[in-house]
Parts: sequence; structure tokens; C-alpha cells
Amino acid sequence: MKIDGKHYRSIELNENGWSVRIFDQRKLPWELVFVELTSRDQAATAIREMWTRGAPLLAATGAYGLCLALRADPSDENLKRSYDLLLATRPTAVNLRWALDEVMNAVKNLPADKRAAAAYVRTGEICDEDVEINRNIGLNGLPIIRDFAKKNPGHPVNILTHCNAGWLATVDYGTITSPIYMAHDEGIPVHVWVDETRPRNQGASLTAFELAQHGVPHTVIADNAGGLLMQRGQVDLCIVGTDRVVRNGDVCNKIGTYLKALAAYDNNIPFYIALPYPTIDYTLEKGEDIPIEERSAEEVTHIEGKNQAGKIEKIKITQSPAANPAFDITPARYVTGYITERGLLDHIPERVTPQAKKAV
Amino acid sequence: MKIDGKHYRSIELNENGWSVRIFDQRKLPWELVFVELTSRDQAATAIREMWTRGAPLLAATGAYGLCLALRADPSDENLKRSYDLLLATRPTAVNLRWALDEVMNAVKNLPADKRAAAAYVRTGEICDEDVEINRNIGLNGLPIIRDFAKKNPGHPVNILTHCNAGWLATVDYGTITSPIYMAHDEGIPVHVWVDETRPRNQGASLTAFELAQHGVPHTVIADNAGGLLMQRGQVDLCIVGTDRVVRNGDVCNKIGTYLKALAAYDNNIPFYIALPYPTIDYTLEKGEDIPIEERSAEEVTHIEGKNQAGKIEKIKITQSPAANPAFDITPARYVTGYITERGLLDHIPERVTPQAKKAV
Repeated sequence: MKIDGKHYRSIELNENGWSVRIFDQRKLPWELVFVELTSRDQAATAIREMWTRGAPLLAATGAYGLCLALRADPSDENLKRSYDLLLATRPTAVNLRWALDEVMNAVKNLPADKRAAAAYVRTGEICDEDVEINRNIGLNGLPIIRDFAKKNPGHPVNILTHCNAGWLATVDYGTITSPIYMAHDEGIPVHVWVDETRPRNQGASLTAFELAQHGVPHTVIADNAGGLLMQRGQVDLCIVGTDRVVRNGDVCNKIGTYLKALAAYDNNIPFYIALPYPTIDYTLEKGEDIPIEERSAEEVTHIEGKNQAGKIEKIKITQSPAANPAFDITPARYVTGYITERGLLDHIPERVTPQAKKAV
Repeated sequence: MKIDGKHYRSIELNENGWSVRIFDQRKLPWELVFVELTSRDQAATAIREMWTRGAPLLAATGAYGLCLALRADPSDENLKRSYDLLLATRPTAVNLRWALDEVMNAVKNLPADKRAAAAYVRTGEICDEDVEINRNIGLNGLPIIRDFAKKNPGHPVNILTHCNAGWLATVDYGTITSPIYMAHDEGIPVHVWVDETRPRNQGASLTAFELAQHGVPHTVIADNAGGLLMQRGQVDLCIVGTDRVVRNGDVCNKIGTYLKALAAYDNNIPFYIALPYPTIDYTLEKGEDIPIEERSAEEVTHIEGKNQAGKIEKIKITQSPAANPAFDITPARYVTGYITERGLLDHIPERVTPQAKKAV
């Protein structure tokens, strides 16, 4: 999507055909810092230190890391060592392992001098596939927004979202942002209520930054405010992303999602989940089976921002002990629909026969 | 309640019998700064600049301001001028006007040389009456906590609260904190989940400070976390305060309260409102009639805390526009009971015949 009027992907091959351009997302929204990755070790650092984040983007960064490794040394030994090293950067990210396996399988039976080129080809495909998935999520969600625009012509469609499931977490489009960008780009007036998403504030920093750069009208709100806005009729629909959806349709997403789903239900407002199919975990039956990550209390007790001197600074906001569960579970009964690359679904279909239904 | 092991009221007459001791609450939780008010103008500044806050405490501070004014000059002219000046400090606070009227009525027909003494007497009564109201709210709420302790012996009673309706907002005890302090003081193990209460963080700063100083175990959480804690069975009951309750029982309170009420209802957890009777607005029928204050966006876009050098600093946390509605409405259907100084109520009674029912 656009930054300062120019189109970018969150990761791109440079014109030289081998080095890779990312953003240092730790600096957002305050500074736009482009980074050129020229070595495997630099790619590993970018993943480990969270210059890039978001499962699909991590997968692409890891795959390019393996390309850079093979360009320097295509030997069996370096292939194996680089695979292990890149995988170890974020050991729990399943997308990263998947992408590294894809590149490994594409090159391992080739002669050494053909490996780097084949790795770049497969990695390019991985990136394009991610863009295509998100583009299709957008196409399948767009009719929902179009319908609201038709019902209330001349008024913006007010969409509430939580956390960041935007293009910065994927290669392009994002999941929840994909239909929003498409609606905006075709001239439908949209306005997004952006939950700041404490404690890490991914809404106020990343989602707000994305929307601002692409020119989508939006307003940041405290996570507490969404209920009142819904009571007042200031929200037409909610769209959120997810880290994992299980077979009964329960949704694990950033802490606080459940509270917004309850408020949407109480006020008869549609609540949609945007997700790529690989986010469905067919090994689990229901939401309570999903383990919830407990993160550092310091994310609650401290917060980072720009001080009056223009410097990024971390301040302490309470002296008390804090707890920091990172996700909650939204029961399927509060979900209006699942916007996927295969269609808009009203439930999670069995693995073999996905049933898509037409947009509402 | 206690600070560093010593009992305080949030406002007290000094031993000299005329000057008044408050805390500069703007500095909490970082510094405990005692302030001695010796003049009407100082009392006015303390109210206007929010050294003190909370409707009952503002009322007491205003009344003492009038005492200080009459001690310096008990003339009719100064009485009238000081009343107007103190009232203008926070023109929308009804409790402040009520307290100034009480003192005015107690002194206006007295000879000048008797006015100051009479003003101090009436102000002392106003303070004692507030303490008595809150003490009775505590006595009426305590059985609820006792019952949970009996049901699950050896385990702490887990109470979730939002914002600050503690003793720092009243003269002593607080409203929601009153039954909690009483339970703690009689040896019932309690643990309080303290919503940080964005955007002004009164939970993380004031409620957490109060509880820590009085020795009540507590944990600060992001406002997003309460729903998950309830899903997991980690909350036994919720108690929140209110700025206004209307005739049908709808509750106006700090933004975000409604979301917690929804989660409590969804998880079959009791949700109580602690309030003094004067908080009931008999002029309004239902919650949607209550005007909602829209506060400065800067409260959302900026946040204050202690930097690494130990200095209080305000930082900016988003570059985007923000909205900041200050209250929301919790519909009466989600309220389990109203803990008042006259008893535990299951609905708001008609004005003339309050019906209290026994504690559940």
C-alpha cells in the first residue's frame, strides 16, 4: 500500500535483483527507516529483533534470508546451517518454518550453482501468494462495505478494528485492512475507529500509521471507548484479525477483541473476522483448548512514545504489579462471518469441503 | 485509610484548628505531597488545578475554602464574593455547589464574629457525613464479599474494578473500595484486578496506589484483559462506582465500564454498582438521556509517567487524530445490585420510599 503517495510492499527485492528492502518497524510511526538486507545474518537479526513482524512477513523475510545465504555459499552445509539459524530466530512462528521448508524443498536436490536462483524464484512466489491471499480477502470483504455504503449514501461507513492486521504484518494489503483499502480506493467513504490496543498499542502506532499513509480517514480511541460508540450508532461494522481460529469457529485474537464482540452483539452490529485459511487450526475443537500466552508485565507498567524533545522514550505508568495475558477468545456465537481468501463463510467448514457463501 | 501505615483522611483540619491538609493528587502515585491550605485563594487553586478531585472531596475542599475566607474577613461582601469565586472553580460539580450552599445557609444570618466558627462546624459535619455514607456503603457491601469467601475458603475473593472510586475521591473509605477495605481489615483474603482505565489511567495510578498503601493485594491489567480473566474464572465479582444513576437503573460511569458489565453478564459474574444516594438523578428516566462529556484528544494521544531519569514526563503515543468520550452507559439489565448507604438494592427505588433489601 502507499506511504507518502508511493506504493510499497512491506518486503521487496531491490532493483539489483538480490538484496532485500524492508522497513524497521520498531521505529513506526515516528520514523520511516528503510533497511537493505544483504546477508543471511542481517535477515536473522531483522526477524529476531522485530524490525519486521507479523506471521506472513516473517515467513517472507526468512525465505529471503535463505536466498541471501545461498547466494553467498550454496553448499549443502551452508544450506542446512542457514535453515537452522533462520528457524531459530522465532522458533514458535509456524509460517516461518513453512516458508523455510518451501525454499529448502525447492533447492535441496539442485546442483549448488542453481540453488540461489531457484530460492529467489520460490521466495518471490511465496510473497506473491501472500499478496494474492490478502487481495482475495479484500475482494470477499468488499461487498460488505459496499452494502453499508449503499444503505446510507453520502455517509462514511464506520468500521471499528482492534490491533494491527494490516499490510505491515503481511507482504501487502493486510487481512482486515484489505477490504478497507479496496473500498477507499474505489471511492467509498470509509472511516476507521482504531482501538489503541493496550498494552502494546499496535492500533495507535501501526494501524493508524498505515491508514494515515494510505489516506484512509480514521480516529484513534482508547480501547474502552468502542462500546459507547456502538451504543450511539457510530459503528456500522467491526472487522478484526485472528491468530488462530478453531473448528467450532471460536476466535483467538489480541486481548480485548472479545469485549468488542460482546458490545457489537449487544448493539446488533456485525462482527467479522478476516483471516487466511492457514490460520484455521483443525487440530483443536474449541476456543478454551487454545493456550494463551502470558507476556511481560513491563508491557503494561511501561509505555513508549516521543517526548517533548522529540526523542523516543519509555516511561513507567504504575508502581503496582501487573498481569499481561496477550489474547482472548471470542466465542463463535458472537461472530457474524469469516472473511477468507476462499469466500465469506458463516462457520468454519470441515477441512475437505470448504463451503463459501455469497457476501451478505 | 492508610498511607505508609498511618491513617489519613483525604482532607483534614490541622491541629491548629483552622488550616487544612490535603494531598497534591496530581503527583500520585509517584510522590506523596502534603499541602497546607491557609487561604480561600489557595483552596480555589487546589480545586481548579485538580490537586484534589472526586465530587465528595471537591465539596469538602470548597466548604473549607469558605471557612478560610470567613476567618480572614467575615463580612457579607466577602462571604458573597468567596462563595462565587469558589463555585466558579469547577462550575459543573453539583456536590461543590451543595456544600457551599450548606455553609452559606449556616452562617449568613449570624453576626460576623460568629461566622467563621459556624462555618468550620458545618464543614466538619459535611466531612463526617461523607465518611459515614461511605462507611455504610462498606457495611452494606461487605456481606457480598464475605459470602464469596465462605463459598471458597482459603482462596482470595477476586474483585475487578474500573477507574478510581476510592477514598482519594471522597473524604475516607471511598465507595467501591469501602467494602474491600473492610473485608481486608477483618482478615478476608481479597485480591483486586485494577483496570488501568485509559485514557487517564486513574486505576493504574490512584486505585493501585490506594490499595498498595493500605496493603490490599492487587494487580494492574490493561482494560482489554478483564474479559479473558472472567472467561477463565479468575474474577468472582465486579464492583464499580458511578457518576450518575437514573430512574430506570441505567448507570453512567467511566468509559469502558459497559464492556466489563457485558463480560460479567456473559460469564455469569455479579456486577455491582457502589454509590451514595445523591448520585441518583431522579430528573432523568433512562441512560440515553445522560449527556456524555467529550474530553480533550490529548488525553488519548499523550500519556504521563516517570522516565528513566526518575522525572515525570509526558510522551506522545500516536500521530493520528483521536476521540475521547469520557463515560458510557451500562444498561440496568446488566447490573446485579446497587450498594448504597441505605442498603443493597436490586433496582433504583422511587424517591419517597426507598426499598432496601437484605444483602444477597
